Amino acid sequence: MSVTTPAYDRLAAVNRRLHHLGHLGSIAGWDQAAHMPPKGNEARTAALAELAGLMHGLRTDAGLPDEMVRAEQEPLDEVQRANLREIRRNWELANALPSALVQRRTLAARRCEHAWRTQRPANDWKGFLGNFREVLAVAREEAALLSARSGLPRYDALMDRFEPGMRSDTVSHVFGEVRQWLPDLIERVQARQASEPVIQPVGPFPIPAQRVLCERVMRLLGFDFEAGRLDVSTHPFCGGVPEDVRITTRFREDEFLSSLMGTIHETGHARYEQGLPRGWLGQPVAEARSMALHESQSLSFEMQLASHPGFVALLSPLVRETFGDQPAFEPANLHRLVTRVQRGLIRVDADEVTYPAHVILRFEIERPLIEGEIEPEDIPALWDAKMQELLGLDTRGNYRDGPLQDVHWPEALFGYFPCYSLGAMYAAQWFAAMRSAMPDLDARIGAGELGCVFDWLQTNIWSQGSRHTTDELAIRASGEPLNPAHFRAHLQARYLPA
Amino acid sequence: MSVTTPAYDRLAAVNRRLHHLGHLGSIAGWDQAAHMPPKGNEARTAALAELAGLMHGLRTDAGLPDEMVRAEQEPLDEVQRANLREIRRNWELANALPSALVQRRTLAARRCEHAWRTQRPANDWKGFLGNFREVLAVAREEAALLSARSGLPRYDALMDRFEPGMRSDTVSHVFGEVRQWLPDLIERVQARQASEPVIQPVGPFPIPAQRVLCERVMRLLGFDFEAGRLDVSTHPFCGGVPEDVRITTRFREDEFLSSLMGTIHETGHARYEQGLPRGWLGQPVAEARSMALHESQSLSFEMQLASHPGFVALLSPLVRETFGDQPAFEPANLHRLVTRVQRGLIRVDADEVTYPAHVILRFEIERPLIEGEIEPEDIPALWDAKMQELLGLDTRGNYRDGPLQDVHWPEALFGYFPCYSLGAMYAAQWFAAMRSAMPDLDARIGAGELGCVFDWLQTNIWSQGSRHTTDELAIRASGEPLNPAHFRAHLQARYLPA
Repeated sequence: MSVTTPAYDRLAAVNRRLHHLGHLGSIAGWDQAAHMPPKGNEARTAALAELAGLMHGLRTDAGLPDEMVRAEQEPLDEVQRANLREIRRNWELANALPSALVQRRTLAARRCEHAWRTQRPANDWKGFLGNFREVLAVAREEAALLSARSGLPRYDALMDRFEPGMRSDTVSHVFGEVRQWLPDLIERVQARQASEPVIQPVGPFPIPAQRVLCERVMRLLGFDFEAGRLDVSTHPFCGGVPEDVRITTRFREDEFLSSLMGTIHETGHARYEQGLPRGWLGQPVAEARSMALHESQSLSFEMQLASHPGFVALLSPLVRETFGDQPAFEPANLHRLVTRVQRGLIRVDADEVTYPAHVILRFEIERPLIEGEIEPEDIPALWDAKMQELLGLDTRGNYRDGPLQDVHWPEALFGYFPCYSLGAMYAAQWFAAMRSAMPDLDARIGAGELGCVFDWLQTNIWSQGSRHTTDELAIRASGEPLNPAHFRAHLQARYLPA
Repeated sequence: MSVTTPAYDRLAAVNRRLHHLGHLGSIAGWDQAAHMPPKGNEARTAALAELAGLMHGLRTDAGLPDEMVRAEQEPLDEVQRANLREIRRNWELANALPSALVQRRTLAARRCEHAWRTQRPANDWKGFLGNFREVLAVAREEAALLSARSGLPRYDALMDRFEPGMRSDTVSHVFGEVRQWLPDLIERVQARQASEPVIQPVGPFPIPAQRVLCERVMRLLGFDFEAGRLDVSTHPFCGGVPEDVRITTRFREDEFLSSLMGTIHETGHARYEQGLPRGWLGQPVAEARSMALHESQSLSFEMQLASHPGFVALLSPLVRETFGDQPAFEPANLHRLVTRVQRGLIRVDADEVTYPAHVILRFEIERPLIEGEIEPEDIPALWDAKMQELLGLDTRGNYRDGPLQDVHWPEALFGYFPCYSLGAMYAAQWFAAMRSAMPDLDARIGAGELGCVFDWLQTNIWSQGSRHTTDELAIRASGEPLNPAHFRAHLQARYLPA
């Protein structure tokens, strides 16, 4: 019997088309960040805007709702049905907002972000507020509209764009728990580390050598250089397309560990993309599940794997071959270097132990901000209080290293921050599941048998694309939905072993 | 009085859109050649095909003919009128052929070109013929259709796509004249050069150093690195967009002059693009005039300027700074190296004196081939006879270095070859005009005052875009249409000075 699914097939064709056009946008966007000379910017921005408009037109085509209704009635298999669910979700996202609002958001965010670039170094909170109020006004309007369509609370409606299915009550509950034990754990880790001397590496570290080291480590981590590249950009990211993943890093002559660890982080994102299911490629069901899931892969690589003492022992000879022998490069010292915990003001510089504090603080501010419970004027005092509570740091008057430090709020990206820590929690959960399945996992990592880690991730995460909801995916992979106990156990085991 | 031109404005909007989409295609195409890892090829090809289809849809939109008729009636200024002429020309090109024929051509050319890659090294003329017959059949059909629309002879209709306004009778006349004096001139140049000893540079020439040298010379030639890049690809080309020009070269450790001269050649193409009129950008009238005109810029840079003894004297210290001192790098010897004339089998390796022989031969074969006066089987005998006549070389049985050497015929690019030599002739004509206007031109070049050359080209060629027909452009720039006497005089003056 041959099954015909004409409406579904037409929807699939539209999505293949979007996939192809998105490919060009991704590569042009990567080029803009990694290669484009400055005078090309205006033309590139105009070209990308043209493409965005064109893709928006395809996504909001008036014929799609009927096609989706017809496709629902067709004899679809399980993957097709999952794909239709994702197609419907994308349609909702594309059609939820009137284009006048989208334009207002774009303009407000562009103005705010542009001014922020100079306001941040100038510590100019007042100047920032002027633009930020409009960004927030638009975001609240957006949240209200999305909330009315979905029935979700307003903040949840924004967060759902990045983390489908995640709810702020869950985040609040999870983060509330972490809040209970984190300050004390940081305290104890720092006390313990105070008695462990660390030898600092001595530079300079020539950039061509750093580059070769990064590429060797990427190979060790299974990055497919036949299907991707490493380049340099101001802000490291993972871009390109699943068939050709472009990751970037940045180098400094006086320091090599942060760009190496950053490259490992992006390699985790990259392997997720390189491992997405090829058979369905071009369809939403073949895309990465969510932002937290993506972050769970970069952190699986950077934190779970690369900061593991067994992996650091593999890294040590590569570092010595690259920069010559130094006491700092001994495995034990190198491991102390990559696991050093320090309370700091800056999120992006934070280690895995203090990082959740930065995210919890932001979540606890942006949620009431979107719900209309607080106003932008209230941010500094809240920021100060929470930094004091969570990390014992005084940030009064230091807006630059306080609420002005991130690009997310000026860019109207509300609801994104939780993904970072949810990703760290999922990563710990994946490795706990691997250890259950492979009790000798730690020995294997130390022996350089990394294939078992990649195979597990390929089977349970990468190859699944968006076939299942995040909860289903987590249950299939690890027997349970998100369980932050694994993250706590991981920190405990790594930083406070008995 | 405010002038309204609604139909023209709508046409201009469509062309701006095409310009933006073409931007993405150019950058993605450049990336494919310069950066893309192999496994990205299939997805990239599909994405570019999607874009091509989309742009074809915009170009063949059924509403355009009426808009063009209406725009003709509107009060357009001279530039707008020229733009409308180019818009009409592009519409003709996009609409002249049924899409089934375009598809057949694409398939036939792809098959032939793909097989050619292995047939050429295998010297497999017979195998090549199998595919080439279909390529030629499609090209003849295409020529017949274009000819029926335009009233031009069939070969002319194909050539007109690359060189609007040029006619094969003119080419035939010009080439026929060159044919008369070229073999004798080559003979005399070679006899003269036989008594001039040349010292060969001694390698290796490290590639990073070659790269730096190329970039220094590009700066000397006024390339704007804020609006373009130099990268590496297998086949050097000038790509990107006018606002962001991407040129490529290739390096060999044992030789540096060919990649340096190749880079200078592409820099000529690049400066044409960088110098196109900014005010009209995004419209056809702001695009480069034609292929021969483009080649006249690359050859103005490579042959007229960079092979000039005055310029070589500027180059000499840069080469010495790059690779250390060598007798070969003395200005006089360096000049002998870049102006060495040698009869050879391969067009792309030919010097400026023997190059026209290669082009004349191809023109004399492809024209009757398209007109149906000869068949593919006749090519080898004709090739042998003409190589004998023009260059005194025997190529019997050597298809690899004979009719199989170029990618043009397998790719169905008929009518393109003449542009190379027409470009060389225009370049000589531009420099003759410059010398009339600036009698001390040669001294200025020797003194490093290259700005006068660039200013002349900017004013007369680059800034004109496609505002005038090629003949008009030539007359405005140099007082006459194409006049090959300047090319002969240039060769005479450089290679056989009294």
